[in-house]
Amino acid sequence: MKIICSPEELTKGINIVSKAVASKTTMPILECILITVTDSEIKFTANNTELGIETIIQGEIIEPGSIAIKSKVLSEMVRKLPSGSVNIEVDSSLNISVTCEKTHFNFIGESGQDFTLLPKVEKEASFMLSQFSLKEGIRQTIFSISANDANPIMTGEYFEIKQDHLRIASLDGHRIAIRNLELNQTYDSASFIVPGKTLIEISKILAGEMDKDITIYYTQNHILFEFDETKVVSRLIEGEYFKIDQMIFSDYQTKVTVNKKDLLDCIDRGTLFVKENDKKPIRLEISDEKLDVMIKTLMGSMQDELEIEKTGKDITICFNPMFLLDALRVIDDEFVEIRFINSKSPCYICDNENNYIYLILPVNYN
Amino acid sequence: MKIICSPEELTKGINIVSKAVASKTTMPILECILITVTDSEIKFTANNTELGIETIIQGEIIEPGSIAIKSKVLSEMVRKLPSGSVNIEVDSSLNISVTCEKTHFNFIGESGQDFTLLPKVEKEASFMLSQFSLKEGIRQTIFSISANDANPIMTGEYFEIKQDHLRIASLDGHRIAIRNLELNQTYDSASFIVPGKTLIEISKILAGEMDKDITIYYTQNHILFEFDETKVVSRLIEGEYFKIDQMIFSDYQTKVTVNKKDLLDCIDRGTLFVKENDKKPIRLEISDEKLDVMIKTLMGSMQDELEIEKTGKDITICFNPMFLLDALRVIDDEFVEIRFINSKSPCYICDNENNYIYLILPVNYN
Repeated sequence: MKIICSPEELTKGINIVSKAVASKTTMPILECILITVTDSEIKFTANNTELGIETIIQGEIIEPGSIAIKSKVLSEMVRKLPSGSVNIEVDSSLNISVTCEKTHFNFIGESGQDFTLLPKVEKEASFMLSQFSLKEGIRQTIFSISANDANPIMTGEYFEIKQDHLRIASLDGHRIAIRNLELNQTYDSASFIVPGKTLIEISKILAGEMDKDITIYYTQNHILFEFDETKVVSRLIEGEYFKIDQMIFSDYQTKVTVNKKDLLDCIDRGTLFVKENDKKPIRLEISDEKLDVMIKTLMGSMQDELEIEKTGKDITICFNPMFLLDALRVIDDEFVEIRFINSKSPCYICDNENNYIYLILPVNYN
Repeated sequence: MKIICSPEELTKGINIVSKAVASKTTMPILECILITVTDSEIKFTANNTELGIETIIQGEIIEPGSIAIKSKVLSEMVRKLPSGSVNIEVDSSLNISVTCEKTHFNFIGESGQDFTLLPKVEKEASFMLSQFSLKEGIRQTIFSISANDANPIMTGEYFEIKQDHLRIASLDGHRIAIRNLELNQTYDSASFIVPGKTLIEISKILAGEMDKDITIYYTQNHILFEFDETKVVSRLIEGEYFKIDQMIFSDYQTKVTVNKKDLLDCIDRGTLFVKENDKKPIRLEISDEKLDVMIKTLMGSMQDELEIEKTGKDITICFNPMFLLDALRVIDDEFVEIRFINSKSPCYICDNENNYIYLILPVNYN
């Protein structure tokens, strides 16, 4: 195998596929990036068996072949190289020689034969959206997945396609996050559960450009994200997702409109005396034109007051402040609308266009 | 006690004194910042018994008094406050009430009586230099102190005043770092050993301004740094420092001038295959107009070649690459001069004006 590449192309390829390199594993080959060179392309692949990524990089192909190189060594080497084109040559004994200007590195690679290739995903069912929409949709819902593996379904996000709409939802038993995204054409109805880890890595790779699309293919067990020169393959989570529509109510007794930043800052302030794992609730007391915020822990207390616009009944309700913060942090609007039914029922933070709904269960407070 | 301050002044005061707040301690009072309010000033103090810092902040004094507050709580609170002046009030039961706009915090402080005040340092012997010079002098030598407490003297830096010169030196048994700084007047001769930890914290506080001075007072056991509205007090390390002058030779057999960045990058590249705690040396082979750099470990090898200007004999010599990197990283010159005696004797990285000398012992290589 012999190729000549720019350091920029190498860096780009490494940065993309390294998201699928295993970090703690008993199988050393999973810590490698596979470089596969054919007559027509140079491909980088990484696969931690849950998630696999491959991407094509530009470069001059002198001799086809393949080699697996520890991701850490490859990325650090490329970072330390002087500027100038990089010559990578591998002999039949897996000796790798990397030359750039007057610098020569020599080391041993691993055989590409031992590498687990990505599963083949049939390109039958698919839909398309902008990279920006997908990246935003993930950012605005991913915090609501469960960190706990006890129920695997909760560690993923629910993707539901209906005509020209994609709904992304996540829930952890205390809250639900929903984003509705418009697609630019009508597709067959479909739904599946994508592992949260996959979506977190996809987000990191996506530049999030408005004018670039991503195509998503899905089968019974796998999902394939295809964009630019890159393919990301992940298994899907098996099982039936929760009936989200049955959890959402549209009627309410109290509706409050409040400046998002003011509310976020105020609740953040309230967490000062809340130690980790300490489940002290924050109390919201809503009366005409005023929201009183109160929290009291063993360490100290805070009171604050915000201006609001209110319709409906006065209400006093308590929440885990972290759940309110998580939702408020991902909302880009200047003002948010919060709907309440009563002090035992969830509140809904939403917008008028139904682009997002954040449902949060209240906490009992004595 | 009652004061009204701007959040900026509070933040400034906290940032300065927090460098002397103890982090892991069995004495909770050492985790506090002491606020002392007299009729004329508001003073913040922190003291971890090794290092003590006090600083004056601006604000309106309504009632004198004192209170000790956990540094972490105070700094997080100030960070979370809305903008607007901050009212801090303490009653006789140590109840603290902090009010800013419509936000109220209530919590309990610790008695100022329990706080260990800074030792009094007699202002007899002193010298002065710019904050910039001191900060730079520390940065360019501090990496050579020993991390190992076995010999306490090596964990400090040697300050030596002779007429209108200050020499700062550090050594760890493998290398010596020396910076010579000019003072703008003549002082009595003096020398003392300042704990490295103190100097690291002082560096962080100093803005490093060229046109602002710092006055340094010293006694048998203590050192006091006085600048702006701040005082930093530290004990000195007892003992006699090494005879540095006896370790420095001015004759040499080989002198090399090389582009600093090129050499730094090249040696950094060489560390790719050096694992932590792995003491693989890097080999420098100096011949006319060429420096060959070579390193070989179990993981792989690197060769590189740099252009140099050389006078004197050819020489081959090996070093711990980390020691070369540490010195090269703090040198601001475009070119460095390295002097060699033979392959068993230390090399000297220095400039013609003798502003700095970095002496590094070679490593045996078979």
